[in-house]
Amino acid sequence: MTQNTVEKNSVTLLGLGAMGTALARTWLAAGHPLTVWNRTPARAASLAAEGAKAADSAAAAVATNALVVVCLLDDASVEDALAGTDLAGRDLVNLTTSTPAQARSRAEWARERGARYLDGGIMAVPPMIGVPEAGGYVFYSGSRELFERHRETLVVPAGTVYVGHDAGFAALYDMALLSAMYGMFAGAAHAFALIRKEDIDPASLAPLLADWLVAMAPAVHRTADQLRSGDYTQGVVSNLAMQVAGTPAFLSTAEQQGVSTELLSPYFELMRRRLAEGSGEEDLTGVIDLLVR
Amino acid sequence: MTQNTVEKNSVTLLGLGAMGTALARTWLAAGHPLTVWNRTPARAASLAAEGAKAADSAAAAVATNALVVVCLLDDASVEDALAGTDLAGRDLVNLTTSTPAQARSRAEWARERGARYLDGGIMAVPPMIGVPEAGGYVFYSGSRELFERHRETLVVPAGTVYVGHDAGFAALYDMALLSAMYGMFAGAAHAFALIRKEDIDPASLAPLLADWLVAMAPAVHRTADQLRSGDYTQGVVSNLAMQVAGTPAFLSTAEQQGVSTELLSPYFELMRRRLAEGSGEEDLTGVIDLLVR
Ligand SMILES: NC(=O)c1ccc[n+]([C@@H]2O[C@H](COP(=O)([O-])OP(=O)(O)OC[C@H]3O[C@@H](n4cnc5c(N)ncnc54)[C@H](OP(=O)(O)O)[C@@H]3O)[C@@H](O)[C@H]2O)c1
Ligand SMILES: NC(=O)c1ccc[n+]([C@@H]2O[C@H](COP(=O)([O-])OP(=O)(O)OC[C@H]3O[C@@H](n4cnc5c(N)ncnc54)[C@H](OP(=O)(O)O)[C@@H]3O)[C@@H](O)[C@H]2O)c1
Repeated sequence: MTQNTVEKNSVTLLGLGAMGTALARTWLAAGHPLTVWNRTPARAASLAAEGAKAADSAAAAVATNALVVVCLLDDASVEDALAGTDLAGRDLVNLTTSTPAQARSRAEWARERGARYLDGGIMAVPPMIGVPEAGGYVFYSGSRELFERHRETLVVPAGTVYVGHDAGFAALYDMALLSAMYGMFAGAAHAFALIRKEDIDPASLAPLLADWLVAMAPAVHRTADQLRSGDYTQGVVSNLAMQVAGTPAFLSTAEQQGVSTELLSPYFELMRRRLAEGSGEEDLTGVIDLLVR
Repeated sequence: MTQNTVEKNSVTLLGLGAMGTALARTWLAAGHPLTVWNRTPARAASLAAEGAKAADSAAAAVATNALVVVCLLDDASVEDALAGTDLAGRDLVNLTTSTPAQARSRAEWARERGARYLDGGIMAVPPMIGVPEAGGYVFYSGSRELFERHRETLVVPAGTVYVGHDAGFAALYDMALLSAMYGMFAGAAHAFALIRKEDIDPASLAPLLADWLVAMAPAVHRTADQLRSGDYTQGVVSNLAMQVAGTPAFLSTAEQQGVSTELLSPYFELMRRRLAEGSGEEDLTGVIDLLVR
């Protein structure tokens, strides 16, 4: 390898929490020269024993390589850590979870300091990092040039999905997927609550529940088609009127089982509101219109 | 075939709505002698042309065969339809959606009239009936003898899952799975709402969303294990404290995108309440305890 190739693959990483440490190990294992820094130096020391170069300061770490990856607690800690570093000419990849607005501001902030900027949203937990078959990946948005230039390095810890030039999009996709997941978890919590007082093993419900959720998840494709066409009656299987008619059974079942309806009612309430607008022949897609101000 | 075998496979079906008609066609196609009745006779007439025997009254239909399947709008319509029929010695299979309490009362009501009773909860829409690869099935609970005796007939329209002697369990499993599905749909609605004002095609979000939900659904197995052991810290990947710390980003992202938080907040509120009880090292399972009174 030429000196040039080695430089191209060198990485500076700021932040050695649970996620940063997992990222670091994959680059070391793949033979990438790695310079690390962490606010609490002890964590850098243990990685140094595995082959990383521990920098004395964030400024020194940033000065070492063109590619600077940060994976810190939140956007405020990124500000803290990068204060007093010289970002001019750097390729800054920010894997810290943030909101779309924070990501956009950080992109502008980086541009003012002469850096290219790529924002990332990690769709994985640390044990999935460096384990391709676990299916984890990172949403990236912002500088496409930066993304293309460092693609081979970025793909080492997890798969990559580039979602657009707007630096806020990675965070937006991240928040969208995780929000949907919390909805699913809320629904599953209600399901487990319903059987609590019965002689039913939760482990006998779990596989039925998992299979059912997996079978129903592809309904989001029909939702997307309806959103694109604007015709919410397209391909409807069970119309809104029929589904709203079914909601009392869910609410009284919850009451019979001594389960609060607080996780279920808000969605049913939106279904009822949409139906009241005369949308009985539609699918559930109209609820989305009611959510957006 | 002996006369006895033919009788064993004969079916009486009350109710020829969208679901009843789909069921009827599968039994006819499989060669089961079928007697049908519907409040509005026109629907029975069209099936008669396909080989069904249309009875003049519910009483006559019930008198024809030992196996009587009802698939009507709701529990009240079952009461209406069966009033004035002689159920003595009948095997009554009720596929009408009802609550667990309604199913238990109906089982008792049938017992008083000398019938064996099996309750069913249909986990399919009409186009999935008679299409095994579509994966639909019916939860059954109540008389195990009835279920075993008519298993080969019951399996014709859709797969069967027997969930216990308590006649209310089929309805309970049905309500549990559908409740969880509505939670997932609520989460997906929030996700689509988040991208509404951006230049993002919903059809580019949909496959990412579907894959993510499918990947996260198996988390219910860990939930079940934790509920069984009572140790909600078992196998935790992201603890409650870390997840609650992340919730403000979801809420402010929603605000930035002009999206109501009404579908997301109730679950986050329960997460916060559980954390306040000192359960920061736990998984999300403790939320279930807060739902049950
Ligand atoms: N863990 C996951 O499951 C997961 C999944 C997806 C995304 N993420 C995201 O990845 C990022 C890192 O997560 P993590 O799990 O590694 O978190 P973590 O284990 O809590 O580590 C936090 C890191 O941020 C540093 N830090 C905090 N405040 C700082 C400040 N003011 N100045 C400088 N450094 C500061 C910490 O340094 P000290 O060591 O000095 O405290 C530590 O390196 C977060 O944005 C998280 O949302 C994590
Ligand atoms: N369709 C689905 O996607 C689906 C999925 C799962 C479960 N299910 C369940 O299956 C059952 C039937 O659903 P469906 O889709 O077939 O409904 P449907 O198309 O609305 O048909 C309702 C049936 O009930 C009859 N009925 C209503 N009130 C009656 C009364 N007072 N006395 C006698 N008959 C009465 C109707 O007779 P008329 O023709 O005279 O009106 C018709 O046969 C429901 O419990 C439903 O929850 C349906």
